[in-house]
Amino acid sequence: MFIAEANIRIHYALTDQMGFVYHGHYAQFYEIGRTEAIRTLGYTYKDIESMGIIMPVIETRFKFLLPAKYDDLITVKTILKEIPDNHRIVFYGEIYNQSAQLLNVGEVTMYFMQVEGMKKIPMPKELKDKIEKYFLQ
Amino acid sequence: MFIAEANIRIHYALTDQMGFVYHGHYAQFYEIGRTEAIRTLGYTYKDIESMGIIMPVIETRFKFLLPAKYDDLITVKTILKEIPDNHRIVFYGEIYNQSAQLLNVGEVTMYFMQVEGMKKIPMPKELKDKIEKYFLQ
Amino acid sequence: MFIAEANIRIHYALTDQMGFVYHGHYAQFYEIGRTEAIRTLGYTYKDIESMGIIMPVIETRFKFLLPAKYDDLITVKTILKEIPDNHRIVFYGEIYNQSAQLLNVGEVTMYFMQVEGMKKIPMPKELKDKIEKYFLQ
Amino acid sequence: MFIAEANIRIHYALTDQMGFVYHGHYAQFYEIGRTEAIRTLGYTYKDIESMGIIMPVIETRFKFLLPAKYDDLITVKTILKEIPDNHRIVFYGEIYNQSAQLLNVGEVTMYFMQVEGMKKIPMPKELKDKIEKYFLQ
Repeated sequence: MFIAEANIRIHYALTDQMGFVYHGHYAQFYEIGRTEAIRTLGYTYKDIESMGIIMPVIETRFKFLLPAKYDDLITVKTILKEIPDNHRIVFYGEIYNQSAQLLNVGEVTMYFMQVEGMKKIPMPKELKDKIEKYFLQ
Repeated sequence: MFIAEANIRIHYALTDQMGFVYHGHYAQFYEIGRTEAIRTLGYTYKDIESMGIIMPVIETRFKFLLPAKYDDLITVKTILKEIPDNHRIVFYGEIYNQSAQLLNVGEVTMYFMQVEGMKKIPMPKELKDKIEKYFLQ
Repeated sequence: MFIAEANIRIHYALTDQMGFVYHGHYAQFYEIGRTEAIRTLGYTYKDIESMGIIMPVIETRFKFLLPAKYDDLITVKTILKEIPDNHRIVFYGEIYNQSAQLLNVGEVTMYFMQVEGMKKIPMPKELKDKIEKYFLQ
Repeated sequence: MFIAEANIRIHYALTDQMGFVYHGHYAQFYEIGRTEAIRTLGYTYKDIESMGIIMPVIETRFKFLLPAKYDDLITVKTILKEIPDNHRIVFYGEIYNQSAQLLNVGEVTMYFMQVEGMKKIPMPKELKDKIEKYFLQ
């Protein structure tokens, strides 16, 4: 299993008049989590795009347990439970606030796709190699 | 069954460098769909809040079938399959582009809550009365 | 002088915990105003981009007189005071709410640029022809 | 003069199909800059709000010199050139990328207002005391 963490400070633009973070913004928090997870592998999502590969989001599922609030310092935990064996990758996520309360759990499914021809491709070998060591006994 | 439709023009701010609408923005499209659905009942979500009731989002599930693009005129179909019999309401949604292609399907679960004391309450009678006629044989 | 109007309904995502529309979102309102202004000329900004031309924003200046609120139906008035005679175009704007209160005044300066080589170019003749009739005595 | 710096990593949601950061998002960058500037004074904007004071934005002016791009690590420099002597405060800002290129310069004018009665008030003494030491010879 591969786990990585990223911290995000909630700024004003993310709040709504209920006094909480607008539910639609959590997709961005999970995006930041994934990006920083990939960076810990010595890679960037930007590198992936420069290889002519994009990773469109195919499905998202988020459960909102407790609201994040203005100026909270949240932690996004990004979890890869298995190595993708085809074009499909599932990122699991958990978001905590500074009091270690679990605010949100999520699943984001993406595809690896070649921009040229817009066809699905398996996970790039360079990335797979980096990730495999986290799944060894 | 209660069905309502709303149209949204995709502006530049909603696109990302993949050339598509960023996946995180669909939550807003479904929000606009719900709001306009409630308005067709002769109510507004603003009215609901002025009654001291809020409707936090508890869960979202979105499937991204085809991307929306800049300047697309999308249609959000909001569907209520059953009358809530407690504090929980589920809105189903479908998003189409101007060529009638299905781009996205979604489910958004919300709770009815009283702001005072932040406790769950059943769907307000005023709203339930409005909606029941759509579910008569 | 060329003037065009567009209407926007304020949805929840645009509010912040002050109970008003977050100031950073007005740039989007003016963008929507410009886009619809161009559309009334029988053109779209999408057409302009498909000609290999982009219009990056070079400067914005907004004055916030009164706040827009949730569910307001605002009107964005987009004003072109003169025909551009080089690569620079200035859009003036005014935003009103449904009670005809002036909420915001703005100026957005953009350049016409050719994507290829990223160089400044004069306003495309096709667009200039459309706009000239609004400036005849 | 009081100067503070904050760093922000550009995530995907902030880009648009031009391949740059959408111009409307810079307001958020300057907001984050101001918030972190206040935090370095041993205060938070959240503290200010809990004193019953809000700081609505009255005017913004941004110049876009060079575009920020995906995955850039930008630095927002927040500058206070003088101590406010009434309800009005002006924050100057500069945004740089990781190559020390100046991308954006901005001015944001805010008012100190008491939520109760929504009336303008001078800068709170607690905050003024913190800031005065930066302006001594």
